[in-house]
Amino acid sequence: MIRAAVITVSDKGAAGLRQDLSGPLLQEMLRAMGAEIVHYAIIPDEEDQIRRLLTRLADEQGVELIITTGGTGPAPRDVTPEATLQVIEREVPGLAEVLRMEGYRKTPLAVISRGVAGIRGRTMIINLPGSPRAVREGMEVLTPILPHALQMLRGEELEHQESNESTGNRSMRHHGGVCE
Amino acid sequence: MIRAAVITVSDKGAAGLRQDLSGPLLQEMLRAMGAEIVHYAIIPDEEDQIRRLLTRLADEQGVELIITTGGTGPAPRDVTPEATLQVIEREVPGLAEVLRMEGYRKTPLAVISRGVAGIRGRTMIINLPGSPRAVREGMEVLTPILPHALQMLRGEELEHQESNESTGNRSMRHHGGVCE
Amino acid sequence: MIRAAVITVSDKGAAGLRQDLSGPLLQEMLRAMGAEIVHYAIIPDEEDQIRRLLTRLADEQGVELIITTGGTGPAPRDVTPEATLQVIEREVPGLAEVLRMEGYRKTPLAVISRGVAGIRGRTMIINLPGSPRAVREGMEVLTPILPHALQMLRGEELEHQESNESTGNRSMRHHGGVCE
Repeated sequence: MIRAAVITVSDKGAAGLRQDLSGPLLQEMLRAMGAEIVHYAIIPDEEDQIRRLLTRLADEQGVELIITTGGTGPAPRDVTPEATLQVIEREVPGLAEVLRMEGYRKTPLAVISRGVAGIRGRTMIINLPGSPRAVREGMEVLTPILPHALQMLRGEELEHQESNESTGNRSMRHHGGVCE
Repeated sequence: MIRAAVITVSDKGAAGLRQDLSGPLLQEMLRAMGAEIVHYAIIPDEEDQIRRLLTRLADEQGVELIITTGGTGPAPRDVTPEATLQVIEREVPGLAEVLRMEGYRKTPLAVISRGVAGIRGRTMIINLPGSPRAVREGMEVLTPILPHALQMLRGEELEHQESNESTGNRSMRHHGGVCE
Repeated sequence: MIRAAVITVSDKGAAGLRQDLSGPLLQEMLRAMGAEIVHYAIIPDEEDQIRRLLTRLADEQGVELIITTGGTGPAPRDVTPEATLQVIEREVPGLAEVLRMEGYRKTPLAVISRGVAGIRGRTMIINLPGSPRAVREGMEVLTPILPHALQMLRGEELEHQESNESTGNRSMRHHGGVCE
């Protein structure tokens, strides 16, 4: 069971001025992926507050996966990526890239999400945009990838996918300088 | 009316040894997008000079959008991305990514552009490669995106696109753990 | 002739516990691209050791192209990207992006490679994942790009691709504010 946390970053949500639809949707889709939600919070677009919560969840609560929703755009108050960059130790840029590129096919404006993804200790942190649509489409992209990625983050080797084995016959298809 | 600036970064252009075709093309396409050009300059591939001009346009001249052309390649003198990274406060990586990925479909070499995009204060700064072709194809990608992105940068919310509303019926399509 | 080096980063490979198939495959595909292999090493997943070898090959041995294989995943010992980021002076993000995006089409898990690409002095450094499959597919993407990229890195201008010329008729197709 993947221990996951959901953070909705929204000034209006935190002030009770807007109902959070993205957070609950994200929880539902994470559960469908096989995760249990050990923490859910709505916090304002404050860099320090985001940074402190991410750090606490990663360092003290043994959360394996934190997904944030909101605060990734170009608006002056959007600072979720900056807070996340301060917390992660190793970036996983491809997760942010694929979210944008797959989003772009459906709506060009998806590319302005500044979301980042990365690792702190044994915790994967991923920023999604704030809209329910972005959450749904983003989770559709992430669901086939995350369980394997988290397995690797735990240090469990996926021999068939990532290893440099001497037994794979796939590598044998390449011979004599001719590449298929 | 979007207040925009165009900077051509080129040693030969600045020395008068080559006619700048990219700068004028960029201005034309920005005007077609609804911008007015408040500044246009041709400067050499000097990191300090690029950095100072970007800073001045952003901080003192109220320019909302600066697009540079040139100096994004791997050549030893190509330092436009490094100068830009020093100036921006928040990166917008998706704009640089989509320019490369859309460019790659037409010419694989497009991926070696090292261009970046980001925000300083209320100013969006984007690096395009130096060729007229890259400018034309790049602006074709950016034109549907930039006016909305700049609106968001001004702090104007685009409710239908980005908000986490309680009224959108799109989110209602998702129910019972079944994702379309 | 491109002077190239291949580094396999693998704890098991360096300890003699696993045969390195990726390193030899990478050498073969680099030779097919027109490179000579001036250095090949298998080293463990130690950040310092990777960093020192990259630096030495770039600064003292006049290597134009270093390709690493291994250590790009999310596992706790995977630090090849971190070592590479310390060594490069100018990033070439598009090479890492295109490797992931082209990989993603065939296997979604390809996006979790954290590989980076960049330039130190006159040396291009690129991280590939550890599996022979990733090496083969990655080199298929890179082969049409690298020879031109390295030519530009040497300071040789590719007039037909990158220059901002006054003679190109392509730019003439754009006129009167109408973009094809």
